[in-house]
Order: sequence, then C-alpha cells, then structure tokens
Amino acid sequence: MLVVMQTGAPEQQVKDVCERIEALGFEAHPIFGAFKTVIGVTGDTRRLDVGSLESLPGVAECIIIGKPYKLVSREFKKEDTVLSIPTPLGDVKFGGEHVGMIAGPCAVETREQAFAIAAPLALAGVKLFRGGAYKPRTSPYSFQGLAVPGLEILSAIRDKFGMGIVTEAVDNEGVDHVERYADVIQIGARNMQNYSLLKRAGRAHKPVMLKRGLSATLDELLMAAEYIASEGNTQIMLCERGVRTFADHSRNTLDLAIVPAAKALSHLPIIADPSHGTGQRRKVLPLARAAIAVGADGLMIEVHNAPDRAMSDGVQSILPAEFTQLREECDAIAHVLKRSLN
Amino acid sequence: MLVVMQTGAPEQQVKDVCERIEALGFEAHPIFGAFKTVIGVTGDTRRLDVGSLESLPGVAECIIIGKPYKLVSREFKKEDTVLSIPTPLGDVKFGGEHVGMIAGPCAVETREQAFAIAAPLALAGVKLFRGGAYKPRTSPYSFQGLAVPGLEILSAIRDKFGMGIVTEAVDNEGVDHVERYADVIQIGARNMQNYSLLKRAGRAHKPVMLKRGLSATLDELLMAAEYIASEGNTQIMLCERGVRTFADHSRNTLDLAIVPAAKALSHLPIIADPSHGTGQRRKVLPLARAAIAVGADGLMIEVHNAPDRAMSDGVQSILPAEFTQLREECDAIAHVLKRSLN
Amino acid sequence: MLVVMQTGAPEQQVKDVCERIEALGFEAHPIFGAFKTVIGVTGDTRRLDVGSLESLPGVAECIIIGKPYKLVSREFKKEDTVLSIPTPLGDVKFGGEHVGMIAGPCAVETREQAFAIAAPLALAGVKLFRGGAYKPRTSPYSFQGLAVPGLEILSAIRDKFGMGIVTEAVDNEGVDHVERYADVIQIGARNMQNYSLLKRAGRAHKPVMLKRGLSATLDELLMAAEYIASEGNTQIMLCERGVRTFADHSRNTLDLAIVPAAKALSHLPIIADPSHGTGQRRKVLPLARAAIAVGADGLMIEVHNAPDRAMSDGVQSILPAEFTQLREECDAIAHVLKRSLN
Amino acid sequence: MLVVMQTGAPEQQVKDVCERIEALGFEAHPIFGAFKTVIGVTGDTRRLDVGSLESLPGVAECIIIGKPYKLVSREFKKEDTVLSIPTPLGDVKFGGEHVGMIAGPCAVETREQAFAIAAPLALAGVKLFRGGAYKPRTSPYSFQGLAVPGLEILSAIRDKFGMGIVTEAVDNEGVDHVERYADVIQIGARNMQNYSLLKRAGRAHKPVMLKRGLSATLDELLMAAEYIASEGNTQIMLCERGVRTFADHSRNTLDLAIVPAAKALSHLPIIADPSHGTGQRRKVLPLARAAIAVGADGLMIEVHNAPDRAMSDGVQSILPAEFTQLREECDAIAHVLKRSLN
Repeated sequence: MLVVMQTGAPEQQVKDVCERIEALGFEAHPIFGAFKTVIGVTGDTRRLDVGSLESLPGVAECIIIGKPYKLVSREFKKEDTVLSIPTPLGDVKFGGEHVGMIAGPCAVETREQAFAIAAPLALAGVKLFRGGAYKPRTSPYSFQGLAVPGLEILSAIRDKFGMGIVTEAVDNEGVDHVERYADVIQIGARNMQNYSLLKRAGRAHKPVMLKRGLSATLDELLMAAEYIASEGNTQIMLCERGVRTFADHSRNTLDLAIVPAAKALSHLPIIADPSHGTGQRRKVLPLARAAIAVGADGLMIEVHNAPDRAMSDGVQSILPAEFTQLREECDAIAHVLKRSLN
Repeated sequence: MLVVMQTGAPEQQVKDVCERIEALGFEAHPIFGAFKTVIGVTGDTRRLDVGSLESLPGVAECIIIGKPYKLVSREFKKEDTVLSIPTPLGDVKFGGEHVGMIAGPCAVETREQAFAIAAPLALAGVKLFRGGAYKPRTSPYSFQGLAVPGLEILSAIRDKFGMGIVTEAVDNEGVDHVERYADVIQIGARNMQNYSLLKRAGRAHKPVMLKRGLSATLDELLMAAEYIASEGNTQIMLCERGVRTFADHSRNTLDLAIVPAAKALSHLPIIADPSHGTGQRRKVLPLARAAIAVGADGLMIEVHNAPDRAMSDGVQSILPAEFTQLREECDAIAHVLKRSLN
Repeated sequence: MLVVMQTGAPEQQVKDVCERIEALGFEAHPIFGAFKTVIGVTGDTRRLDVGSLESLPGVAECIIIGKPYKLVSREFKKEDTVLSIPTPLGDVKFGGEHVGMIAGPCAVETREQAFAIAAPLALAGVKLFRGGAYKPRTSPYSFQGLAVPGLEILSAIRDKFGMGIVTEAVDNEGVDHVERYADVIQIGARNMQNYSLLKRAGRAHKPVMLKRGLSATLDELLMAAEYIASEGNTQIMLCERGVRTFADHSRNTLDLAIVPAAKALSHLPIIADPSHGTGQRRKVLPLARAAIAVGADGLMIEVHNAPDRAMSDGVQSILPAEFTQLREECDAIAHVLKRSLN
Repeated sequence: MLVVMQTGAPEQQVKDVCERIEALGFEAHPIFGAFKTVIGVTGDTRRLDVGSLESLPGVAECIIIGKPYKLVSREFKKEDTVLSIPTPLGDVKFGGEHVGMIAGPCAVETREQAFAIAAPLALAGVKLFRGGAYKPRTSPYSFQGLAVPGLEILSAIRDKFGMGIVTEAVDNEGVDHVERYADVIQIGARNMQNYSLLKRAGRAHKPVMLKRGLSATLDELLMAAEYIASEGNTQIMLCERGVRTFADHSRNTLDLAIVPAAKALSHLPIIADPSHGTGQRRKVLPLARAAIAVGADGLMIEVHNAPDRAMSDGVQSILPAEFTQLREECDAIAHVLKRSLN
C-alpha cells in the first residue's frame, strides 16, 4: 500500500503516519518528492484497512498495490485451471486449449418445452444443458420458475440425452436442491455479492459458475470467487454477461476486455454469455464469435424453440437452427486460436 | 405497451402482430405513421412479457408505458406515506413534513466503541442508532461483523439510551435475528435484488430500509420495494446511497435527482446516505445538506469516535462533534422547506 | 509517479527501470515489498509520459501522484478566486461568500421572446442574462441559433435592462463575435476538450465559463481550465451540468460531489446548471436548492416565458414566476452557509 | 412520436394536446389504455421539438419513434456502403466483404521515427498509414504534434512507400491542411460533437473517419455523421474506440455490440480501434481479433518501433512484429466470415 500525503504536509505529520504504520505491524518507507511525500507500506497489507490510515491528518489518499485475493490469483497458481465437468456424454472442459459450450432455455417452463429444446441441442453436440428452475425476476409478478419440479425435468433431460445440467441457485436452500440435481451451480449477476450464498456455494461439492454483477469491477468479481474458494470449493468458472453503461443500443454492454484482463490476474477459466450480454437475438451470433476470438474459455447461449412464446427472455433467445450456425463459426474461430470447442 | 414495427414492415406483419396481441387477451391499436407503424396495446400489460412480441417478424422494439409496480406506486396511494418508527425516546418520522435522522458507526466492533459513539449521539438528539452486526465485505478476509453478540450490544444501547436500532440483515437467517433485536431492518445495496431476502423481509414485522443497488435504476429500486410490499410489509423506506459511474473524485456518485423522481412515482419516503454516497469524510457534510435541500425524508450518517481505528469504513465516518454541526445546518435547511428534523 | 513492478519481477528488471528513470532526468526510489516492488519517481514528473515507463519489461503499471495542472490548482493559489463580472447593474460575484445567479432562455429566438423573458428576470434581481446565439444541436436539422443577429438582441437587452450577457461560442470565429458582444464567454460541454477553442478563449479578454463534459473527470475538467489559463486568461469559472450514467430518471446525473471536490483541488469558482443537469422542469427547483446547499458558487437557470413554444430545451425551462420562488429558497439556503446570492 | 399522458390526465388535457399537435401541422391519434392515454403523432416528426409537447399540462413524456438521421440511415440506402480509398499501392476498401487495415504511430514525432515504423508496416502489406500531426492532449504541457511539418513527413511516407495517409484534424484551419496532405481526414472522439468541425469536414473532398465520443450513444454518433453528410460529403466511416464506464481493467470499454447495431441502422462502414479501445498493449491483439469476429469493416492499430520512447500513447502501441501476428490472425478470422483483409 502507498500512503500519499497532502502537498505541503509538514514533516511531523509524515512522521506520525509512519509511526502509526509501524505500530500496526508494517514497515514505512517515506519518499520525499518535489511536490508530494509518499509513504510505501510493506508487509502483508491485505490485513490493513485503508480507512485506518486515510483518516490521519495530512493524508491525501491511500493506494492499494497488492491485490487482495489469494487463492484465485495467478500468483497463487501460475498455470491455467482447466475445469472439467463430467457428464454422461463425456467430460466438458473449460480452459487451456478447451472451449466449453453450454446451451438451453432461460427458464424451464414445461417438460415438453425443455425436451423440445434439448433434443436438437444434443444432436448439435451440446454436452451441457442450461435452464433455470429458480428465476430472479425484476418483478414479483413475473414467472419465478418451477423450483424443484423444474430441477426434476432437468434431471430427466440428463437421463434421456446424457447432457450435464447447469442451473442457478438464488439462496442457501436452493443450493441444497441444485447441488443434488445439477452438475454446475450457477450464481447469477444479481447475487454476485450475496456473500451468504457465495459461502454456501463454497461448501458445495459441485463446480460453480459465477456471473459478473452488472456493475462489478474485475477485482470485485475475483473477490467474489475468493469467497467461494476460501470455503474450500476451487471448482470455479467466471462468466462475463454484460455490464450496465449509458449505451442503449444493447440491453447491456458486453465487456470482452475482461477476458484477457481476468486471465492476467487469475488462473480461473472465464466464459461469456452473449445472450444476456446483448439482450437481443440478432446480436448473439456476432458477439459469440467475438467472445471466442478474444479468448473466452466457453460460451453460454440461450436457445428456445419458440422464443415468441417464452415465459422469460424470449427476446434474446436464438432458435436451435441458429445455434448450429453459431457453433460452427465459433469452432472455426477457436481453431484460429489453436483451441477447440467441446 | 407500444409495439414499434420496422420501417417498411408489410401490412401482413402488422396484421399478424395485432392478431397475436388479441390472442394474448389484449387490444391492439395500430397507428400508420409516415415512416413507421406503431401498435398501441391496451389491457393490463404488466402481465405481458416483452419478449413474446419483440421476437415476432417485423417488430423493431416494444416500449413499456405503464409502470410495473402497484403497491408502492403513487397511483395506488396518492398521499405521501409517513413512516413512523417507535423508539423509547419517542417516534421518529420519515416523510411528509418530517425528516428523520439515523446515525452511528458502520460496524459494531466492541461494546466500548458502540457506547462511546452512542452517548454523544443521544445527547445530540439522535433517536435512531445504526450499527452493523452483519457486514457484507468485498473481501472474505475482512472483518465480517460480530453477528448476534453485535445485536446484543445494540440492544443494550437501546436499553441505556432509548434510541431505536437500525441494522442490516444479509440472509434469511439474519432477518430472524435482526427482527428480534432491531427496530428497522436494513437491506443493503448489494442485496437489493436478492429476491429471496426481500421476500423474507416482506414477511417481517418491522419496517424495512431498502438501499438502492450500485447500478439500479429507479424502476428496479421500486420493483425491489414491491417485492417486500407484495408479501404484506408496506413499512418501507428507500435509501439513495450513491451509484457507480466513471467519476473518480468520490467513491460513488450520490444521485440526488432520484429523490424528486421517486416521490413523483411512489408514495414511499426516501432518505439519503451521504457517507457511502461519497466515501469521504470531508464530503459528508456538504452532501448531507444537499440531500435535505433536494427534499430527502431523512439521512443516515456514519459517525465514529476514532475513525482511524475503525474496523471498516473509517474513511467516511465523521466525528460526533462534526455530526452536531451537520445536524444544525441540515435542520436550518429543512426549515427553508418548511420541514423539521426529528 | 510510482512504478509498480509485476509480482516476481527479477531484480535486474527493477534495476533497468531505475536506470531508465534516472536517464530521463528523474530520481528512482525502489521499495521492495512482500509481494511487489514499487519504485517512487521524484522530480517534476508532469513532464514524464506514462507510456515511456509502462512499456518496459517487468512493469505492471504506473500511478500518477502529483496533479498535472498548475495555474488552476489550489497549490498554486491558496485562497478562493472570487470572479467579479462587471455589469451596468453592478458587479456579479462568484466565489468566497458570493453566490452568483445567471438566468435566461436556452436560445435567443426572437427579439420579442428575449425581451419577454428578460423583463421579469431583471425585476427578480437577475444581473446576468444567458441566451444562446450559437446552439450546438445533436441534429443538423434542428434550430442552430441566430448567430450575430442573436448577439445583437442580447446586446440590446444589456442596453435596456442593464444585465450582463453570458453566451456560448462554439468555434474560434464565434469567440471573436461573442467577445465583442458578451460579458462572459461560455464553453459548452460538448466542446470541453476542443483544445483549439479553449486556447482561443484563453486569449480572450472576457471571463470564461467552462462546462464539464458529459463524461469528463474532475482532472480533465481542470486540465481544460488549465488550457485556458495557460494562454493568459485566468478569469474562469467551472460549471457542473450533469454527467451521463445509466440512470434514466433524469436526462443527466447532476454530480454535486464535484463541488467540494473541485474546491479542494482548485481555487476557481464552480457553479451548477440544474436545467441541463436534470433535463426536466420539475427537478430544476429541488436540484438548484441542493446545488446551493452543497456549496456551489452560483447557478445558471433556463427560464422561458412559453416553454411549450421554445425552439430548444423547453422541457427543462421554468417560468419566470417559478424562478422567483427558486431565487428565494436558494437565497435562504445560502444564508445557512453564511453566503448570499447576487 | 408518442405522447404519453400522466395517469388520470382528464379528457380535456388529452384534447388540448391533440389540438396543439394538429395546430403544429401533424396528426394526433389518441389511444385510451387501462392506465394511461397515449397519443400517436404522425407526419414528419423530425421537425418537431420534444419540448413543445412535453411541457403541456398532463403530459408525462414524449417518446421519439422515428430516427432523426436521414442520409446515413439504412432506410435511405439499403445496401452497405463500401468506402474505397485510393492509394499508390491500390485501393483500400471498407465494407461489404472487405476489411480495411490502418496502422501507424499515435503521433508523428520525427522523420526517422515515422519512416522506421512505416517500413515494416509497408512490408506487412499495410496500405493506409496513420500518424497524428495535430494531437489533442489532455494537458496543455504535453506534446501537441508537429503540425504542418508533421504532415510533410506523412506526405514523404506516401511518396516513399505508396501508403495512403490517415491523420486527424482538430479545427477548421487544420482541415484545410489535412485535406491537402492526407487521404482520410480523421475526426477524433473529443471532437465528435464539435459541429463546426463536422460541417467543415462535410465540405472537404476527402473521406472522413469519425470516431465515437467517449460517452456518445449510437444515435449521437449517427447524427454526427449526418452533420458531415448533410454538407455533401458522404464518404464516411465510423470508428468504435471504446467508451467510458466504471470498469477499470482497461482504459476504455470497447463496445463491440455497436458494430452490428450500427449496421442495422446505417449503411456506413464501421471499424474498430482496439489500441485506444483498451489503452493497453497486451489487450490489442485479442480485441482486434474480437472486432473482426463481430463484423467490423476494418481496424486501426497503433504501432511503434520503440513504445517506451514514444511521445504519446506508447503504452498502447504494439511492435511491428506483433502487428504481423495480429494481421495473420485477423485475416484467418475474416475468412470465417467470408471476408478478407486489405
């Protein structure tokens, strides 16, 4: 950490700050510049609260240098984590040279709907099926998901088609159920800083997909992953799904630069969700291609057999036939990066 | 709702969309403009999913006209809700001509610290004391709050000083405890769309203070309040606490225009939290004044007796003496608006 | 400046960076921390391009400590600048204990319209009249202002009512004209980084009001002011007029925290424009009060006698009668801060 | 345009609004919904100022349906515009199946530097060379470009290597010079709404590359292009170069969804600038690939032979060798989309 003193802060204030730093068990290294004095603080400053120094007389600001996450950091583990999800159809891998694919409807609505979507996806080579049984909806009057009966439909899809299941949990009780029925526990964007839920997911025995919050920085996303990892579950993949900005030509702004940025700081795989990331069916294919081109370790795509009858998010769902084209183009781009879709 | 057709959409597409609208149980009113055709949809369109129309051939976009919230809307209840919180020192009112004041430390750290802060605040006329027993912290390695022992300290403060207690719950189990010990249940910004928690708070028998999420629109904030109200608890106050923008001169951007905007759409009281809203001690006083001037129904202020030793958010806490000045200036400004602090 | 090395950067890289720093004429101060090495750079680092160090092997990032502006900085001049604008009705002061008021229509449309608005404003005590003769409009097909004939109307208003004139220039040629006719040259938000225009304004002999760009940081705003000052014109006031965020309940988000933030870094006065800052007539009064309460040195308010017939921005203009109420309430709030409106 | 009335607005107000609409020369079509009345307005509503209706009693808001641009719209011209830039090495095409490439340093610093960068780029097949002679810099104390001598160096590069020249103009006088020396006139992000400059560029006889402003919406970008087109110059290409958001892991947020969005609304080609769009050398390659994958019609890439000695933006410049890899990978991805680099 660096403590920047106010311009013209008298020497006594600098001395006082240094003393406080040492009293807290760290070392202080003042640098007297032409305009400002800056004090370097060494030691394990992750334990140090910024406020305890920033409110001292003469201090202008504190700058955190070291990153506060440990287990998910690239410094902790140099090589890429390849997350491998076992399914009856075989393992699906995310990371390294492997690009994983997840597809399915936003929500499980009925057994018929879910099976009608699952069948062409299984044919198209999809090995991980997504579908929500618990839906976090902005309105309390919107369809909230089928809950356990929805999980049972997903389970039947695994039995019938051999695809693994990715589905969201929105509270601790939900994790109990999802853990039993699904192969990957999804934590949604709205719950990225629901620390109680993150800790519960960290005690689960299934991999976790953690979606970036609508206005989360990369550091916050990695700290949320650290919450999961710190409870013992290091089977984590991150997911970029668009952030909220002033731009109004897409529902969210898919921030693809986070993919190389996350890979520089963390060993975890990171995938992209261009369906939520754009909110518009016509933009799913181009942004899916872009996500693969930027180096994402996987994709999650919303597919519906009758988007105009969908109970949620029909507007961003593509048809099974469109998915086939998407898969082909993404596979070809993955090959340019010497990777392959699975 | 309005369905905007693509330029040049053939008449048959317009007819098909109208038929779908009527089939869904609504009425369709096409308007043929010079460039575009627009179809007005009437009926209770809150039950209508945008996606079900937006994915039809020829549709450019759907525009929602009616607001999706009911119980919290100004249309449902014309007059301002005045929220009255009973405390041993007397009722504290938020709304109408009443401006309520809440003050206290970010977190309850020790009995000594909490009492040292409570004493001067009680003297300064504060009747609602805040302090966190459950702290949602970005890092799993930061102080997470004292939990139930923290709630017991708060309870002792009520016994000793007569102040009511405002404290945050972060999960359903926490609401059970907070409901027992506190007078107002706080839902934090990170949990504004934790719908499981909102529903639990909606079944609680204590008033709820709902903080705006870091990137929540006003509609989303009101929908979150609707989640609480729809479960039966209409004792709700909203809280603006700053949003995330590109601006880097304050930790968050306090968006005071939401105060008149919320009052136009909803009957609920809305307060401001300039401590989190700025993240910097020196800006708390000016922004507190501004919040009163814009018409906020109350303030929540972080106060600490030794900010440089605070275990969280010391950097934005003011001293008890500074609080006294803040209270006086805010009271004088409230009088300009023909309101008074309590 | 601080150069943060990558974790595990070998000692030789640290040495190389230090050598480069010294070769560039600065001093290097390495601090070897537990996780990272940081190198303090001293000397007048404003002359140093970040890129020249950030692209060296082993460097993670460079952090700028000193602020890059000089003439407009609080370090250059400790006491507040009080900007005094002479008008036939007397001087109008911005800064210190003085809060200045500017009012008038968005655009000068006709002589009749301008006079009809000027008359009640003069009666209400306004000494600075605003009105655009050059209008930067999003569409080339919208009304672009009357140009020089508009300036002549403004000049006639000064002759008739004694009010000084504030009006915008959008290019160098326009500054020539505005300088001749007006008392304050306004630089609009869209031109805040039009450096050619800023330099021209810096050579003008009239005070300049510089509006913050829609996504400008405080540092960028102050650097834009520095462009003007560096050409010799230090008669500058800043103006907060709202920034662009995701929030959709007002046209822009008025960022009032910039007022105390600017005052901490700069000696220049800063005013607020709640008309553009909200874009909605009903929010002008509450946000005007808030601006005074936060400590702004003045206000600029759009007033129109027939907003529904205005050729631009009618939607955010208030009526002369509403202006009178605004002035009274703002005056009362200014008194709470021991200041007075003029 | 649609006029949305307030809930419960009395019939007389609806009637008054309809009468005003008709008095202005448009047709009014009221729709009486369950909660709200909405009035459709038909006629060429581009001539209609929103404010003139929005300030009438009973009006809640006005919603603009038709897009305000004409010449640049897809409705005006159905097929893609292919912009063809003649250079001594042959034409470079942007649009349709053609993906154009522009590369070179941020600024022309010296003849030696410019030639040292041009030589390997010409070898790598680049036919359009970029380099700034007029640099809009945040600080007045930073290097501002060589001006005309810089243009002469660029001209010498065209003579020597046969590459066409792309360079920025920052004011009307600059356009005079750039038009004489260069093949494409660049309008920078900070000047996207400098309408005086846009109009001058619209009278130039060279193609214009228009960069998106830091917080510009797509509609504003297209309106800025319309300013150029409305003066007669329809040789325009758009450029996405990143927008300003809260995200701090890259200097700007490259918003690739604007590429398909722009193509849906406009016939103009749109390219991407991943150098400014990320501000970090290590992210240029992945985001360049993503831009091609999303369907951009070209790339502009900053290349420097000695980034650590660059006078501006060294931190985001790649080396000539890195450019060769970028070109190859982008070419391979373009082929997946059945397009080719030129």
